[in-house]
Amino acid sequence: MHSPVSLIPQLAGHIVASGGKRLRPLLTLAAANLCGYQGDRHIGLATCVEFIHTATLLHDDVVDESRLRRGKDSANAVWGNQSSVLVGDFLFSRAFQIMVSDGSLRVLKILSNASAVIAEGEVMQLLTTNDTETSEEAYLNVIRAKTATLFAAAASVGAVVAERPTAEEQALESFGMNLGIAFQLIDDVLDYAAEEDSLGKTIGDDFREGKITLPVILAWRRGNDEERSFWRRTLEELNQTAQDIAYAKTLMDKHNTLRDTIDRAGHYGAIARDSLGIFRECPMKDALLKMVNFAVHRPN
Amino acid sequence: MHSPVSLIPQLAGHIVASGGKRLRPLLTLAAANLCGYQGDRHIGLATCVEFIHTATLLHDDVVDESRLRRGKDSANAVWGNQSSVLVGDFLFSRAFQIMVSDGSLRVLKILSNASAVIAEGEVMQLLTTNDTETSEEAYLNVIRAKTATLFAAAASVGAVVAERPTAEEQALESFGMNLGIAFQLIDDVLDYAAEEDSLGKTIGDDFREGKITLPVILAWRRGNDEERSFWRRTLEELNQTAQDIAYAKTLMDKHNTLRDTIDRAGHYGAIARDSLGIFRECPMKDALLKMVNFAVHRPN
Repeated sequence: MHSPVSLIPQLAGHIVASGGKRLRPLLTLAAANLCGYQGDRHIGLATCVEFIHTATLLHDDVVDESRLRRGKDSANAVWGNQSSVLVGDFLFSRAFQIMVSDGSLRVLKILSNASAVIAEGEVMQLLTTNDTETSEEAYLNVIRAKTATLFAAAASVGAVVAERPTAEEQALESFGMNLGIAFQLIDDVLDYAAEEDSLGKTIGDDFREGKITLPVILAWRRGNDEERSFWRRTLEELNQTAQDIAYAKTLMDKHNTLRDTIDRAGHYGAIARDSLGIFRECPMKDALLKMVNFAVHRPN
Repeated sequence: MHSPVSLIPQLAGHIVASGGKRLRPLLTLAAANLCGYQGDRHIGLATCVEFIHTATLLHDDVVDESRLRRGKDSANAVWGNQSSVLVGDFLFSRAFQIMVSDGSLRVLKILSNASAVIAEGEVMQLLTTNDTETSEEAYLNVIRAKTATLFAAAASVGAVVAERPTAEEQALESFGMNLGIAFQLIDDVLDYAAEEDSLGKTIGDDFREGKITLPVILAWRRGNDEERSFWRRTLEELNQTAQDIAYAKTLMDKHNTLRDTIDRAGHYGAIARDSLGIFRECPMKDALLKMVNFAVHRPN
């Protein structure tokens, strides 16, 4: 994060020091280890993965006008939107500088493709926001692009540095992709169900912004006309009262949509687990399998 | 600019179709030609250069809250800040995808370094905004980073694809850097002196935003206490009346600061011209020399 322009390490340090689960760089490190990699290139590349993620967080918080991130003031809340946009650009560029000094065109291809897909996913999300008729498929396309693709790239980079056969690279890519989908589904559940203290962000953000996530999509599809006009008023027209979030949760309970979203996450988690079937048992494989359990059962 | 997410080609197409001088990709093409390059890699790489530039324009317009770009509504004015941030990210990623498929780590290094420096320059500019005591050196560091570095990278990439000796690469890099500085100095003059129709943006934007550019720096340094309190009120406190821009121009005339900024631009233009001294005379060299004249004497 070093730069002679001190605001850059200051702002980037704020968001990096504020924690986060570091799942993506962990994936790169664990995948490289699982593949028997002995060098240290995976460390720089895990950094690239986290920088790309951090850049998207900085830009997301500007796009969503979020005030909280990981339980602290978001960077845009402290330094303004302008600095967040520009420091995001810097971290993104820095990630590519690190990749270039690593020197693998395969890695550069995986991560530049992932970056383009993430941006496409974010734009897709923008377009489905406030559209209560969004289908489960359209939603899955969004979370695949905006979240799961970087998980997939992070894991497959681990196999690439270890110079493993394509089958292992693909297995790790599939592991990351499905883990990422499961992770995002639970994230969307937690936006309605978590305790604010443990979540590190404001509860009901998705609802207030009119983001259409699976718990809502299922409630809409299972609801009656009256319920659908509630969803339209609150999420399409963003005409909300203080009681609406509680009523939204009532409807989700009535139709079991949080429970069923967790079940869907379990489905993708199972695929992730099975994709590791080609690797022999070892502590690193156990650790990756535990990441799936964490993603599906985490409290925040 | 292709993407299945149609807002992306739509928004990117808007800013690309709205014109602009295309100086940066022209530099790549002309530099490659000057170096006797016969292939077609320079075309893809010129595209990367323009995409990186376009991404920074989209983000700049968000940062500056601009409503006009190249004489048309800016993308953020039409589609909102969110889309501009995200489509900027997409174009930036796309540029790296194209570079990766080109396959030159040298080119990737030059352009990833340039991207990081540009972001640093934009942050530096943010920090000098509203600071009337900004020195000419600090200002030069900002424009070197935010503008001239990409001109330098664009030109040196042309020598790299032609596989020319380091001396030619460095000559073209120096040409681009000094041309870029001259270009930005004139840009900053035009923000006070151009006709709005030909400029394609609002006159006095820099003044209204409190951006500290060389015409102001010189006026501040040559001014008396009363004049300095005018600059402080208008540019630091952003406490402006409708008449202030006219008075700002009066002070610039009094101290000849627009004229002297143009002279400074002429100085960098001369360095750019001389840096091409090692190339034999040819139509492409003439064309590059004409770019210097254009940059220093352009009406918009």
